[in-house]
Amino acid sequence: MTSVEHSPLTRKLSAFVALTKAELAVLDRLHKRRRIFRAGHDMVHQGQSAQTAFILYEGWVCSYKLQADGTRQIVDVQVPGDFLGLRSVLLRTSDHSFEPIVDIEAVEVRASDLLEAFAQTPRLATAILWAASRDEAMVVEHLVGIGRRDADVRMAHFLLELGARLALVGMGRAEGFDCPLTQYHLADTLGLSAVHVNRTLRQLRERGLVTFRDGHVRFHDHQGLVDLAEFDPAYLDQTGPLLT
Amino acid sequence: MTSVEHSPLTRKLSAFVALTKAELAVLDRLHKRRRIFRAGHDMVHQGQSAQTAFILYEGWVCSYKLQADGTRQIVDVQVPGDFLGLRSVLLRTSDHSFEPIVDIEAVEVRASDLLEAFAQTPRLATAILWAASRDEAMVVEHLVGIGRRDADVRMAHFLLELGARLALVGMGRAEGFDCPLTQYHLADTLGLSAVHVNRTLRQLRERGLVTFRDGHVRFHDHQGLVDLAEFDPAYLDQTGPLLT
Repeated sequence: MTSVEHSPLTRKLSAFVALTKAELAVLDRLHKRRRIFRAGHDMVHQGQSAQTAFILYEGWVCSYKLQADGTRQIVDVQVPGDFLGLRSVLLRTSDHSFEPIVDIEAVEVRASDLLEAFAQTPRLATAILWAASRDEAMVVEHLVGIGRRDADVRMAHFLLELGARLALVGMGRAEGFDCPLTQYHLADTLGLSAVHVNRTLRQLRERGLVTFRDGHVRFHDHQGLVDLAEFDPAYLDQTGPLLT
Repeated sequence: MTSVEHSPLTRKLSAFVALTKAELAVLDRLHKRRRIFRAGHDMVHQGQSAQTAFILYEGWVCSYKLQADGTRQIVDVQVPGDFLGLRSVLLRTSDHSFEPIVDIEAVEVRASDLLEAFAQTPRLATAILWAASRDEAMVVEHLVGIGRRDADVRMAHFLLELGARLALVGMGRAEGFDCPLTQYHLADTLGLSAVHVNRTLRQLRERGLVTFRDGHVRFHDHQGLVDLAEFDPAYLDQTGPLLT
């Protein structure tokens, strides 16, 4: 990681803004504090006063909220290039917990780092606000999914979204992607039971649409899945730089 | 509106950052294009390529998504000081529709206005990122509510959240607030039927907790409602400026 020119965050922000050399250098300086976190050990606890965010460099994380009754709602999963707890650096307490799904590498970012970077290049502030807006658009899709979509549509939509997000940072291919999520993660994300997740995945496989097995998602009929999910990737806004 | 020193947005951002005279002046310049929108007429349609956001100055708005089957999920309601479609100014298409619930006054903001403001004062960029983060935290609460909370808890949580948001911009009192939402708005927000909303409100009233009638929410037992909802306002992060 001597240069971040091709870091996942850089790839992602490049979908919004054509980054100049100076802006790449500012992004580079944001990447100075690398840290490793182990799978299954929370990075940030709900209610913790953190003032620190992370940029995920390698691996997968899920962000979740625990209810007082012990049930867990996964709010989103994060893949390389995503911020973890951008809110925790600005809000006084974290409203989430973050759990690495596999061993991960992440870069620590403090509020002062962000202020300094924004002072140097206001376009970077806009790009990070773009990324935060896109994160919110995904949470909105999950809200609509849980509120209004059937289990098979919800699952199809989520897998297609993951595929598109990974493709943006160079980790997905048209035919599928590697995915360390378990059926328990899928259940807590989609508001289903693990048994229901299992049945839903079997149905999607038997209909020849998609297989999720042994840590790999394989699209057999991508267009069929898009049709089922009524998946319109416009909310991911990743069709090329808007600011040049 | 000759000065925005006490505009709802200024009041709101002041909970995060102690604004200097120069920053107030930049906020002032953001407020130059005032517009009136009539109740019931959408301001921005889902899928519209807008590149324009609004700052709500007076009145209430709801943001929603229509599903292909015609059902509507209200993602959030906006009150004075809130951005409408901050995402639309950065993402290429709007992933929401916005409907004024009453006649409203809003200020138009373009991407170029934001870039100019951020260049003049990077602290303002951080403050607006804070506001966007807070908006996302609210959507997360609604997601958890729909995914994991019973109808009475969901309703109690939403009414307490509204009360706290309005108090921040000087529009709520400890004993309650004026609220133009109908039972249909509440139903589409909370993922309930209108009949279920009606029954839930009656139960909360009969338990002596809260009354919502004739456009007014009255808290009879605020602490009792907080206990029922397990409402912790930390995610609204409005306890005083963090950046001084």
